[in-house]
Amino acid sequence: MRIDLNADMGEGFGPWSMGDDAALLDVISSANIACAFHAGDPDHMAAVMRAAVAQDVGIGAHPGFADLQGFGRRRMSLSNEELGNLVAYQLGAAQAMARRAGGQVRHLKLHGALSNMAAEDVSIARACYEAALAVDPDLILVVMPLTAMDEAAEALGAKRAGEIFADRAYTETGLLAPRGTPGAMIHDASAAAERVASMLRAGGIVTGSGKVLPCRIDTVCVHGDSPDAVAMARALRGHLAAEGIGIARFA
Amino acid sequence: MRIDLNADMGEGFGPWSMGDDAALLDVISSANIACAFHAGDPDHMAAVMRAAVAQDVGIGAHPGFADLQGFGRRRMSLSNEELGNLVAYQLGAAQAMARRAGGQVRHLKLHGALSNMAAEDVSIARACYEAALAVDPDLILVVMPLTAMDEAAEALGAKRAGEIFADRAYTETGLLAPRGTPGAMIHDASAAAERVASMLRAGGIVTGSGKVLPCRIDTVCVHGDSPDAVAMARALRGHLAAEGIGIARFA
Amino acid sequence: MRIDLNADMGEGFGPWSMGDDAALLDVISSANIACAFHAGDPDHMAAVMRAAVAQDVGIGAHPGFADLQGFGRRRMSLSNEELGNLVAYQLGAAQAMARRAGGQVRHLKLHGALSNMAAEDVSIARACYEAALAVDPDLILVVMPLTAMDEAAEALGAKRAGEIFADRAYTETGLLAPRGTPGAMIHDASAAAERVASMLRAGGIVTGSGKVLPCRIDTVCVHGDSPDAVAMARALRGHLAAEGIGIARFA
Amino acid sequence: MRIDLNADMGEGFGPWSMGDDAALLDVISSANIACAFHAGDPDHMAAVMRAAVAQDVGIGAHPGFADLQGFGRRRMSLSNEELGNLVAYQLGAAQAMARRAGGQVRHLKLHGALSNMAAEDVSIARACYEAALAVDPDLILVVMPLTAMDEAAEALGAKRAGEIFADRAYTETGLLAPRGTPGAMIHDASAAAERVASMLRAGGIVTGSGKVLPCRIDTVCVHGDSPDAVAMARALRGHLAAEGIGIARFA
Repeated sequence: MRIDLNADMGEGFGPWSMGDDAALLDVISSANIACAFHAGDPDHMAAVMRAAVAQDVGIGAHPGFADLQGFGRRRMSLSNEELGNLVAYQLGAAQAMARRAGGQVRHLKLHGALSNMAAEDVSIARACYEAALAVDPDLILVVMPLTAMDEAAEALGAKRAGEIFADRAYTETGLLAPRGTPGAMIHDASAAAERVASMLRAGGIVTGSGKVLPCRIDTVCVHGDSPDAVAMARALRGHLAAEGIGIARFA
Repeated sequence: MRIDLNADMGEGFGPWSMGDDAALLDVISSANIACAFHAGDPDHMAAVMRAAVAQDVGIGAHPGFADLQGFGRRRMSLSNEELGNLVAYQLGAAQAMARRAGGQVRHLKLHGALSNMAAEDVSIARACYEAALAVDPDLILVVMPLTAMDEAAEALGAKRAGEIFADRAYTETGLLAPRGTPGAMIHDASAAAERVASMLRAGGIVTGSGKVLPCRIDTVCVHGDSPDAVAMARALRGHLAAEGIGIARFA
Repeated sequence: MRIDLNADMGEGFGPWSMGDDAALLDVISSANIACAFHAGDPDHMAAVMRAAVAQDVGIGAHPGFADLQGFGRRRMSLSNEELGNLVAYQLGAAQAMARRAGGQVRHLKLHGALSNMAAEDVSIARACYEAALAVDPDLILVVMPLTAMDEAAEALGAKRAGEIFADRAYTETGLLAPRGTPGAMIHDASAAAERVASMLRAGGIVTGSGKVLPCRIDTVCVHGDSPDAVAMARALRGHLAAEGIGIARFA
Repeated sequence: MRIDLNADMGEGFGPWSMGDDAALLDVISSANIACAFHAGDPDHMAAVMRAAVAQDVGIGAHPGFADLQGFGRRRMSLSNEELGNLVAYQLGAAQAMARRAGGQVRHLKLHGALSNMAAEDVSIARACYEAALAVDPDLILVVMPLTAMDEAAEALGAKRAGEIFADRAYTETGLLAPRGTPGAMIHDASAAAERVASMLRAGGIVTGSGKVLPCRIDTVCVHGDSPDAVAMARALRGHLAAEGIGIARFA
């Protein structure tokens, strides 16, 4: 059995850094690289693209709202036309930076508030994805299964990669349990690995009650911005190996 | 005889517009489209890309400094590494927006202070062009003949298009006469057309004293941001036709 | 009878202009000056501040969301703490620019989506106004009567100026009739002046059915960004004079 | 004997932090607070203003170029008019944020490339300072002695505070020795304290050869952005105490 591990990267900006990209690139197989709208800038992008190519990690564009101060986490009301342009622009910038580093963008994952909105509203997801596919029809869209994202990607006939979170519990409808609720966050790498393994074996998201919601699972999101993020990711990878699950890019 | 006419476009931003892109697209054969750093934004880019494709006008990326307030006209001290990343990023964004509109970026022209600095300093020109060619080796670089831009493009073995200005006088060394000096600006379309025709026939820039400085001339820059810009461009095109010079994209 | 006329100003940015501030300053008595977050920049602010002082027009800060591309018209989700800081910062900048021009900020009016949100949600209005009053307790808050803005300003014991729109119809609850609905926009200056006069005489907003909703009316908003805005404002002023209503700053 | 210790603060931006402001506020007597153009944002400013008031540290505005990505360290070509507006705007924003936190801005120190340019060019220094004094004539200008900054501030009759650097060597003309040159950087707190003490006793800057260049010395700059910055600052304060030099705000 194999699974992809993905993480957000290139989230520094100007003189400010965030996370330990170099260490994380040793652990993951796909990198979601910020495109200078909510984080990153052309210089940070160039550096992380080079590192991803050197480590043979799959490169993804990670577009977000044009809100550096809010890190793309504050919802903004944009028209679908504006959303499409926002995504196409950032994707193109990422493609050029990847090409210059000797690599290429193979996937796209929406960031922050834009991702949340696309998970809820199929017209938002469609606007983003349609624009991205017009730029590159072979792009793999990283989607949260059972959400509007997934629905829009499927309707567009796009290549998709279903993503689960190693460190989050799921509600009975397959959504992430809100951070506040008891048991919503899983802090133990061994427990997280077990959850991932059980979902992979079940072929779907396992809810709090143990119900299985069948869906495609291709990649596991690990976080890079907390101090112990790399340790957690590394431990998860080790535990997955112990469960007989190897790490490889999604196809 | 044939020549290309190029103009800067897509220089609106958010609620603000600049120039009459639609009218100018009727007159020119190549459009230098702002990439959202010194002017433009993804929405303005999308609109002007669509219009350029519809009018069959050649699409160019027009990168500049990240200085919207200063319209990219204020010099900034960036390292060569930063300059390369700045140009590659903007080029990639333009490529994606062009592709989505059904077209493609075929040329690149530097904007404002970045252009001025590249005309003076070959290492700056080289940093910008090397980055652009790493993204697309077939890109045509629009250069001012006899400047460091031209030298850098030639040294890189790049496709080049030599550009002259219809409405500006040249010094004895082939540089633009400073705006303040007498006769530096040519306001009459007929006189401008005559100058262009004489340079094309002479195969080089004609200086104030009438000396010919041989160089390649592939395109003539017309301006779009003044109120009478379109009228001037249209008149120039008419006068060139009367001189037996047709308008066509540079090869 | 006297009324204030207010208009948004200083809405150019960098090389881009918007509206005819100089002409409008001849007509109005209070200027709401953009503070460089949704429009304007320090240079545009300096110029319009000087002009307002020269024309003896009352100066107001006009803060909005940090969204130049969207002109502050796109809703953003900010915490109340963030909203307060956003408003205080912009107010302070406006105060300094006014002082340097020999004037002073006497009122504050929220812009665009921030204004819409404050009209609907009293906690948002309160967050903005509390921050502004902490900077200057004597500030006059321009509020839409019968909205959450008005409620928040009153609860804070602030000086208020109630604002009506000359060119918009009102619903039965005293809100602006949506732009799409028939009769929502009043394009005739004479009709607009009559409406203003009738509201002033009635001491409240007159709804579509003719009902009077009593409220304070201190200022009339005129628009500056459309081509015929100045003509409309001038005509309104003339018609008001004919109705015996003079123009003077709110107290 | 007494001296002021100043440090740059509030240099985080959005999700990114820089330095340990809380710890440094325990050591210094004056804080130069970034104004959201080269670093900081209204939320970071609010937080550091509150902390400075709580710790009874003198508050200063620290304006810089509008270049977050370059942290205000990249030179930009602005007109003197633009420079004045840039400084006045940022000063006003800082005043409002200070007032809201229960404090007030008492000094101003230019940041980064703007500071370097003002140290070299008296017309640049004058443009910045004149604008600042028009906003607040009682403002104390922190200047580098023997530079154009100092000259401009004196010519304007402004309150001044002369600043030396604890951790830098000086050339024979009283300028900072370039970072590359041997001995330019002083890494030992005890040596730094001795240097400060000797300059205070000598009443001027002590050059590499031991020559004394008489000038006013009111404050010592300590750095906050390196990992061991706080330790260095604390050690310096301790060593100064051992030399009989107390720490107090400049008058």
